Amino acid sequence: MHGFFHPHNVAVIGVSQNEDNLGRRISTNLQNFAFHGILFEVGPKGGNLFGRRIYRSVSDIPDRVDLAVILTPASTVPDLLAECGRKGVRWAVIESAGFGEYGSDGRLLEARMREIAAEFGIRFIGPNCIGVVNRHNGLATPFVLLDPTIKPGGVSLVTQSGGVGISVLNVLSSEGLGLAKMASVGNKLDVDENDLLEYLIADPQTEIICMYLEGIRDGRRLMELAGRSTKPILLHKSNIGSAAHGIAASHTAALAADDAVVDAALRQCGIARFRDSETLVLYLKALAMPSLRGNSLAVLSRSGGHAVIAADECELTGFDLARLPQSFLEEIQTLLRANVIRLTNPVDLGDLFDIDVYHDLAARTLAMDAVDGMVFLHTYVASHEAGPSRQLFEHLHVLSRRFAKPVGIYAATEAREIGELKRGLSGPIFSEPSDAVRSLALLRDYRHMTVRERLRPDGPADIERVREVIDRCSHAGRPPLLHEALSVAAAYGAPVAPWMLVDDEDAAAAAAGVLGYPVAMKMVSRDAVHKSDVGGVCLDLADETAVRAACRGMARSLREHVPGARLEGVLLQPMAPPGRELIVGARWDRHFGHVVLVGMGGVFVEVFRDSAMRVAPFCADTVEEMLSELRVRPLLDGARGQEPADIAALTAVVLAVSRLVTDVPAIVELDLNPVRVFPAGSGCLVLDARMTVSDEAALPA
Amino acid sequence: MHGFFHPHNVAVIGVSQNEDNLGRRISTNLQNFAFHGILFEVGPKGGNLFGRRIYRSVSDIPDRVDLAVILTPASTVPDLLAECGRKGVRWAVIESAGFGEYGSDGRLLEARMREIAAEFGIRFIGPNCIGVVNRHNGLATPFVLLDPTIKPGGVSLVTQSGGVGISVLNVLSSEGLGLAKMASVGNKLDVDENDLLEYLIADPQTEIICMYLEGIRDGRRLMELAGRSTKPILLHKSNIGSAAHGIAASHTAALAADDAVVDAALRQCGIARFRDSETLVLYLKALAMPSLRGNSLAVLSRSGGHAVIAADECELTGFDLARLPQSFLEEIQTLLRANVIRLTNPVDLGDLFDIDVYHDLAARTLAMDAVDGMVFLHTYVASHEAGPSRQLFEHLHVLSRRFAKPVGIYAATEAREIGELKRGLSGPIFSEPSDAVRSLALLRDYRHMTVRERLRPDGPADIERVREVIDRCSHAGRPPLLHEALSVAAAYGAPVAPWMLVDDEDAAAAAAGVLGYPVAMKMVSRDAVHKSDVGGVCLDLADETAVRAACRGMARSLREHVPGARLEGVLLQPMAPPGRELIVGARWDRHFGHVVLVGMGGVFVEVFRDSAMRVAPFCADTVEEMLSELRVRPLLDGARGQEPADIAALTAVVLAVSRLVTDVPAIVELDLNPVRVFPAGSGCLVLDARMTVSDEAALPA
Repeated sequence: MHGFFHPHNVAVIGVSQNEDNLGRRISTNLQNFAFHGILFEVGPKGGNLFGRRIYRSVSDIPDRVDLAVILTPASTVPDLLAECGRKGVRWAVIESAGFGEYGSDGRLLEARMREIAAEFGIRFIGPNCIGVVNRHNGLATPFVLLDPTIKPGGVSLVTQSGGVGISVLNVLSSEGLGLAKMASVGNKLDVDENDLLEYLIADPQTEIICMYLEGIRDGRRLMELAGRSTKPILLHKSNIGSAAHGIAASHTAALAADDAVVDAALRQCGIARFRDSETLVLYLKALAMPSLRGNSLAVLSRSGGHAVIAADECELTGFDLARLPQSFLEEIQTLLRANVIRLTNPVDLGDLFDIDVYHDLAARTLAMDAVDGMVFLHTYVASHEAGPSRQLFEHLHVLSRRFAKPVGIYAATEAREIGELKRGLSGPIFSEPSDAVRSLALLRDYRHMTVRERLRPDGPADIERVREVIDRCSHAGRPPLLHEALSVAAAYGAPVAPWMLVDDEDAAAAAAGVLGYPVAMKMVSRDAVHKSDVGGVCLDLADETAVRAACRGMARSLREHVPGARLEGVLLQPMAPPGRELIVGARWDRHFGHVVLVGMGGVFVEVFRDSAMRVAPFCADTVEEMLSELRVRPLLDGARGQEPADIAALTAVVLAVSRLVTDVPAIVELDLNPVRVFPAGSGCLVLDARMTVSDEAALPA
Repeated sequence: MHGFFHPHNVAVIGVSQNEDNLGRRISTNLQNFAFHGILFEVGPKGGNLFGRRIYRSVSDIPDRVDLAVILTPASTVPDLLAECGRKGVRWAVIESAGFGEYGSDGRLLEARMREIAAEFGIRFIGPNCIGVVNRHNGLATPFVLLDPTIKPGGVSLVTQSGGVGISVLNVLSSEGLGLAKMASVGNKLDVDENDLLEYLIADPQTEIICMYLEGIRDGRRLMELAGRSTKPILLHKSNIGSAAHGIAASHTAALAADDAVVDAALRQCGIARFRDSETLVLYLKALAMPSLRGNSLAVLSRSGGHAVIAADECELTGFDLARLPQSFLEEIQTLLRANVIRLTNPVDLGDLFDIDVYHDLAARTLAMDAVDGMVFLHTYVASHEAGPSRQLFEHLHVLSRRFAKPVGIYAATEAREIGELKRGLSGPIFSEPSDAVRSLALLRDYRHMTVRERLRPDGPADIERVREVIDRCSHAGRPPLLHEALSVAAAYGAPVAPWMLVDDEDAAAAAAGVLGYPVAMKMVSRDAVHKSDVGGVCLDLADETAVRAACRGMARSLREHVPGARLEGVLLQPMAPPGRELIVGARWDRHFGHVVLVGMGGVFVEVFRDSAMRVAPFCADTVEEMLSELRVRPLLDGARGQEPADIAALTAVVLAVSRLVTDVPAIVELDLNPVRVFPAGSGCLVLDARMTVSDEAALPA
């Protein structure tokens, strides 16, 4: 990848003298950014540009070429690429559009480009992209004119959309944030986002990596790369897809929609997801600050109103307001013009107008052990106090570095002045009190993301029994039935409620006698996806009469609801004791592979969607984290005199599923719902299960 | 109020020639804004300023004075106010600090000021404020220098913090939004936010009213005024209070925290609440557009990436993407350089670079019946396309007005150019694709807020029975007990489960026989706030043996948990059939009076906090709206083969509580929880209740 960003000699192919020529704009960008290397223009009409000859072909260039930037009609690109290959070019940026995104002709061109690249050992970015920028050596290949005022810095960007890439550059520029490198991946025919990510993780000039992606090519590799990165990675994954999907076949599928999987996977590998550039900017400013050691902030404000707004935001983002020593607050009081202020944090500096005094107060506040970070809210009129205010801000940045504690600075002043602050200061500044606090909250939450080792958990794994079930279903050309799904769960150690499958009323009565009354009866039919919708579940059957009646009723009900449906039998279970009901499920995702979820089960499952999800495999520490994300967690821990639930038993079920989908990739969907969890020490029982399988699930996308 | 904003002669009291003098800044503001009237400066040292004499006292002024602006030490203010009174001044802005906010001396001064104002018929704003601005006549009294580039316009502002007021002016200025009037209320000693609101609602120059309040003085009046307003009112109510309150005594109190009451009340009277100036700006831009007639948007974009981001935001904010006619999309296709685009909405204008064509496409899109609004995303480099791009934006604003449909325009360009667009265009522009969509969503949701008449609902109301219970408890010096709370609910027509209260084991056994097995038994004790925490609830007691054992167990358990506690008796109820459990509750709030809530009941009540709340009284249409806000609503309507719940019966219970707290203001808190709701036609039953009363609840704050 290095060659894409550090070429010495660059050829821009597709340049003419015409004002409207897009290739000419590439040259203009390289010129404006003062590219450090040597530049050659190529175009069939020849002529000259910026005092240089436009060569009629690459082979005419009298020197070696490291990087070729191609922006010519799609049909001409393969031959030009081959010519570059013969010239010894190793790296190419292909900006032309009209390839795979435009149908089959384009795909043929793409196939040829791939062959040529392989033949000559060329790596290329694109097609259908705006190429690469390296702000540190002046390399700038977009065919859109860039604003050269953007500062060099440590932020690198990988984008699937040129337009979005340019807007991010505009935002960085107006926020005074510095750029390292940018790459627009386009159709990702050769180089993709993961290749660039891997390079940028190792790149010494890159401190933070931002990505804009509309699709993720290889989610597993993305997770691996990100999991190893010591640099922050921020991703805008757009194209979240429509909610207007049909009703999902399983609860797990409903809860684990594609975009929810992306959320879970990114969190799991430590990538922060954002959805707009406002949040991106808050992240970039946050990550430029020292980390928070604890959760306590001090808020100092020149305006009482701003102090109240910042305190509200601390409340909303879960920050504590540090207790400041009484003696310190009393000392501030003596400095004020009037006699009394409310002695508290947030500190309202009220009518203490002397900016110099703020320096000392800020230093002493940051020095306190009880203070992990500070929010400083300063309001001024630029025409009166620009000088001392800017000094104050710089002083606050120095203090932040000295004490290794973040300081979120809000400047309440005219827009023009804020613009100058953003460009001039050595650290971040915010133009909204709540932004200063939110940015610190993003910093805290980002640093709290833990990337855990993703190992297959040990435990029972009777894979033969599972294969047997799957093969049997596959031969019969039907999905696994209720009892088969329960067997699969049991084969991996999940505690499944005892059951007996029978096919007539007499057998049902006999089975109920063996299992012990009261019993539950469930319909087993490949034609009834949702049993309860077709009268396929009867609970609390107290005696033989009830069992016989239920048996007849169930057959009748199925016939009425689904004419011609096959009734494979009825399954009986002893009624389980009461307990808390959860769902444990898994789903295969084409980008990330299998995900496993745990959540609130029963009737509320899709109402509150209270669930946590991870990409499999994972171990017990991850399950602990998942459970801590559930809103029902307090009810599991025991509340209002209830005993705590058997978290260990529930954890074992989640791990069984994590193990199962790792060993048996053919599983498309698995719902264990409800998993009824009893008080601590009393275990849990899987009461119902549903499963679908497919050989294709095992294949990568 | 008119006099505050339209004085002809203004005296600024507290002015000196000293550069640092704050009164002098007031004069400077009036000067900078070219105040239309006549200005007099007053200060004990005399001298001159801006070519005018500084009078040594108000009485020296040789002309009448309409408005006095006072900024002198607190202790001098009462006498100065009296002098103004003698001079015939009717309106005063008192900016000095050091009054009630600084303790008892200040409060004495305030009392004197009130007396003097009453004596002379002076209305005054403040103290401790920055006064008033009328951008249309140049009146500008803040002692902070204002940026006079802020445009005249239709946005008026009432603020409790001068600092926040100034920041809002800065934001308006940088967004190119025009100001009508501003008033900073300070300590609200005479004029308060409601007085100003009432004035601004009637003020012809005010189109939109923004407020920043840290406290609400009279919530009921605020609701009345807002409910009648035809102008949008936007409120930043800060000072939301800490979540670190103790455990609330009732579920209703936990769900109806002070700030949640503010939310409910504002929504109910049609005030839009915001928490940061970013959202304020989105609202102001939204409300400058025509309303949305339906929920379908068309998205047109020059960059595919921006189109995807806008479509995501449509998805997240619940917009539909309009189906555009195939013929229209095919026509666009013929205009593109390459042959194929994805024929869909969002429309990716891809390589259709000709801006003039956009005019026509936009007009034809907006003309379509299927399109209720449009998002137009345009990216350009200012140095190349500023002219045609600005023309395009103006054209879009003209189209928006012509078709009376909102158009959210995103400009992806350099920050400098965006600044110029904001100042120069005749309509709003956004600098983030998602903001353009969010603003339309705010517009839609704002217009959807319905202000309903707040009448006491008709129905059973045995107020005597309720008074009797309350008097009895008041005499006994204890809160109402379980059976008393149930009686109160029954007196207003809530269907309460049958119950018998007994005080020994034999009586319990006899009562159970009468009620019929199985029964529930509940402890009645003034000393056990949460029965279930102290073993005070036994369900499903099947026979006399069980009843007797439970009776003994309950007495023992209470003794163990709460030594010395009084057991008033045990209450028996027949076990109710299964059903969906809700909570209906009420709470008295010191700013808004009684609120009533309905929500998911039972064990999950405080986990999911799924509830809806309104200020009482209200009628059935409001209950319908409340129920539609609940996430459990689908479960009430019936899902997965379940029968729908008896919504009518539940509604009647909510209305009973609305009626009850309207008639009996002494009720501080009331929990009916659970209210078990049976299938439609089968009614519901209040199974448990808790209530606290106080004579003080009846009093306003």
